[in-house]
Amino acid sequence: MIYIPDFNDIKKAEKLIRPYIKRTPVMTCQSLNDIAAADLYFKCENFQKVGAFKFRGASNAVFSLTDEEAARGVATHSSGNHAQALALASKMRGIKSYIVMPDNSPQVKKDAVAGYGAEIIYCEPTLEARESTLKTVTDKTGAIFIHPYDNAKVIAGQGTAAMELLDEIKELDCVIAPVGGGGLLSGTALSVKALSPSTDVIAAEPEGADDAARSFKAGKIIPSVKPNTICDGLLTSLGERNYEIIRNNVSDIVTVSEPAIKQAFRLIWERMKIIVEPSSAVTLALVLEKKIDLRDKKIGLIISGGNVDLARLNGYLE
Amino acid sequence: MIYIPDFNDIKKAEKLIRPYIKRTPVMTCQSLNDIAAADLYFKCENFQKVGAFKFRGASNAVFSLTDEEAARGVATHSSGNHAQALALASKMRGIKSYIVMPDNSPQVKKDAVAGYGAEIIYCEPTLEARESTLKTVTDKTGAIFIHPYDNAKVIAGQGTAAMELLDEIKELDCVIAPVGGGGLLSGTALSVKALSPSTDVIAAEPEGADDAARSFKAGKIIPSVKPNTICDGLLTSLGERNYEIIRNNVSDIVTVSEPAIKQAFRLIWERMKIIVEPSSAVTLALVLEKKIDLRDKKIGLIISGGNVDLARLNGYLE
Repeated sequence: MIYIPDFNDIKKAEKLIRPYIKRTPVMTCQSLNDIAAADLYFKCENFQKVGAFKFRGASNAVFSLTDEEAARGVATHSSGNHAQALALASKMRGIKSYIVMPDNSPQVKKDAVAGYGAEIIYCEPTLEARESTLKTVTDKTGAIFIHPYDNAKVIAGQGTAAMELLDEIKELDCVIAPVGGGGLLSGTALSVKALSPSTDVIAAEPEGADDAARSFKAGKIIPSVKPNTICDGLLTSLGERNYEIIRNNVSDIVTVSEPAIKQAFRLIWERMKIIVEPSSAVTLALVLEKKIDLRDKKIGLIISGGNVDLARLNGYLE
Repeated sequence: MIYIPDFNDIKKAEKLIRPYIKRTPVMTCQSLNDIAAADLYFKCENFQKVGAFKFRGASNAVFSLTDEEAARGVATHSSGNHAQALALASKMRGIKSYIVMPDNSPQVKKDAVAGYGAEIIYCEPTLEARESTLKTVTDKTGAIFIHPYDNAKVIAGQGTAAMELLDEIKELDCVIAPVGGGGLLSGTALSVKALSPSTDVIAAEPEGADDAARSFKAGKIIPSVKPNTICDGLLTSLGERNYEIIRNNVSDIVTVSEPAIKQAFRLIWERMKIIVEPSSAVTLALVLEKKIDLRDKKIGLIISGGNVDLARLNGYLE
């Protein structure tokens, strides 16, 4: 039996990580409200440390370890925001972190992880090589593997973003979060259903990476195969714990088209004057594409992160 | 004699425009503090309505008009943020605005101004044509000319940004503002010296448009000639009212190099995850270029605006 976290775990996480994380602002934008014909409240995790919500889960995982566990260090395989988040949380606790990264990762990401003092172990850019390299590292060092999303402490940490949102904005009709592996969505769903049961939790997923929507409809996890979208944070398959929470707490998973994602991405940059990564734009894309009727609703949107390669910007703008 | 506004005018402006403007956030960024070795507090006018501080001054000018004056409408010549600001403030008051714009202005700017319901009058792209066209318009319509910076109501409105900053952050060692025509700088200086006399007001100006620095040293206004910088909001010469206030209240005007501006611009985008226009980056550039010693200081920086053409981004990044 795997342990499925609940809202109590999120409350504990919130107390534990409060000194380390940033309480991010909730932003509004009149011109986007006008365009959407709805009241939009953006929880801006692009302003979180390391530029993404991932720091919440990583710090909860790291600071939940006993001293004995912590002394062994932590490890993960990731080339994305989880790698930086785990490296920084480990640095803050003063423990070792081992990050397995594909050797073709962008230099800027290697530098960021190394800058937080992590030990980087390079591998071939395949899932198989990543997993076998990680196993070699944990076998050799005894470091504790922190999965980027299928981990109870990570899920509980991610849930603190929605907890802050609901503390600040009352009586939301729904909260929309992006879904990739389901770490953010499952944590969000636990917080929302505990704090405001009548608020719907809706997930937004790119059409080109629609494994979560298909899993949700099929009633079982369907893996992601050859996803194709600009949302590089939403390519992974659902985790087991994440799926269990999602199927019990999420109202719907709605897919959005690439043109809608690009349009939403541009609108957030131009109207809100904030930098978000393409994966964050799926939430606004869902509102604007109108596959479901959200007119006149009071809507929370989780902006997941802001780590974007500015040199690739033109490819993201419609 | 021209009327030079003082802090009382700013207090009045603050009361008058409060219902119309946005109280913008003051942001901090640990990694920029580390890089600068100082405590930086960014007053984010990029989040202001129309995306720039200009809306403060324009709305103070428009809402200060008597009903008789307002019935005549307002006019200006501008292709920049002041045009949009005046158009929106006029729309909010329900009066006519006439905006003289060079016919080669970017379509996106024409659309924005037209979108606020202003009447656009096109002219040749020369200062002479702009001024003569404006005169024709005001003669014909009776509309009241609202100068973009050399206007007491406009200066008083711009000063409300620093007033909010000092209300929120106490005991600043200095406040840094960009200087172009001097509207923002003069309003900022009046607020800072009234509310916190020991806080220095320092202006940042691009080396390639250093007329304000030369004017400050010469003790008289020296016009801007062929300025050359990516800071398209800082090309104009100082206004008379602005110069009078600046010479009495500003400690120094420091020029910054284009490479320093581009580096600061990139850092704000990448580390703070906010969209600013190049003109806003001169303040951080001043801190980073270290021509004056600001180490360990508590510094307020006015981020003037966020209206940037994303298609031109690569030219702004070093």
